[in-house]
Amino acid sequence: MEIVHFDIKDFPTMEKRFRTNFINSLTGFKSANLVGTIAANGKTNLAIFSSAVHIGADPALIGLIFRPTSVARHTYENIKTIGYYSINHVHESFFKQAHQTGARYDRQISEFDAIQLTPEFSEALPAPYVKESKIKLGVKYEEEYLIKLNNTILLIGSIIETFLPRECLMPDGFVDLEKAGTVTVSGLDCYHTTQRLARLSYPKPDLPLSEI
Amino acid sequence: MEIVHFDIKDFPTMEKRFRTNFINSLTGFKSANLVGTIAANGKTNLAIFSSAVHIGADPALIGLIFRPTSVARHTYENIKTIGYYSINHVHESFFKQAHQTGARYDRQISEFDAIQLTPEFSEALPAPYVKESKIKLGVKYEEEYLIKLNNTILLIGSIIETFLPRECLMPDGFVDLEKAGTVTVSGLDCYHTTQRLARLSYPKPDLPLSEI
Repeated sequence: MEIVHFDIKDFPTMEKRFRTNFINSLTGFKSANLVGTIAANGKTNLAIFSSAVHIGADPALIGLIFRPTSVARHTYENIKTIGYYSINHVHESFFKQAHQTGARYDRQISEFDAIQLTPEFSEALPAPYVKESKIKLGVKYEEEYLIKLNNTILLIGSIIETFLPRECLMPDGFVDLEKAGTVTVSGLDCYHTTQRLARLSYPKPDLPLSEI
Repeated sequence: MEIVHFDIKDFPTMEKRFRTNFINSLTGFKSANLVGTIAANGKTNLAIFSSAVHIGADPALIGLIFRPTSVARHTYENIKTIGYYSINHVHESFFKQAHQTGARYDRQISEFDAIQLTPEFSEALPAPYVKESKIKLGVKYEEEYLIKLNNTILLIGSIIETFLPRECLMPDGFVDLEKAGTVTVSGLDCYHTTQRLARLSYPKPDLPLSEI
């Protein structure tokens, strides 16, 4: 197996698109979520994110990384204005539509209309869910951190409600994302389904692992 | 399809392990990485993380979420002391060993010895890589942000070198993680291989997507 090595002096010499693809691939597999928001004038917005990160379970907190100048700026502005947003899993059945939300649509166009996914509202959340998504989180904005190194933002919200298929919820709280058809992303543009290897028991120093 | 709904009043009533499994599942699929560090006394450490998040490509920045009181506290202390760490993809061939690094080993025990993975050093990085991993990043500590909501830490580093199989690097910079056998994690303990659906072209408002 031939190994290719790059060091920090090589990165600036890479063609921009090459570097973006390359560095985006290195974290490993990522989540694929559609973030649903609404503007003060009632116009809905939908944008794909691969940066959702678990921050904590109690309270239930989830983070997203934003580049304020990116195509996700409308999402950011809506969250800061309204204070709420939805996070909807992307499934195999609509991953191409989800990817298409990354296009730079004009502000007066709702991605819901452009890509033909269906907005859906709950009583608790002043932001649209994606009806076609099986696993949906209603999220309240909590706080943000400006990452000074490159002017990105870690935006953190608390989960205020969840919807999911009962058949995907295991007795111990684990959610079977594979059964829901949730996809994973690598790099900027590659989508994958998954195949379970195993659930493994809680690791302890002197005990062999078992499969759950 | 029966839908189960929870709201924010339900979360505190959940049994602790149930809640932890549940909320950890909700972000979607996650990366699986082994973080390699070394203490000032030369003792190596290895710990699994599912929280790696892409922060930026230029400069190349990667984030990790830490709970300072967790089993990952030795990793955190080593990073803050030495200033460097490695991030190594977890593959199907050693995902059980990787999971086992989550056990609370005493500080004088190196997880490399306990789980039988092999430390490997480069000239540039004062921290151990995992020889068995095909995709390895050398990372320099840059800064951290304390998330006041729950006292977790977003720790950010800059990538100073990378190693990967040449056959996994595509001409446009995309890294084929599936070809490398990199796994993805759901919840706290479930490991999956992946199957590619498609790479999709850069989305534009009035153009149909194509497969790359």
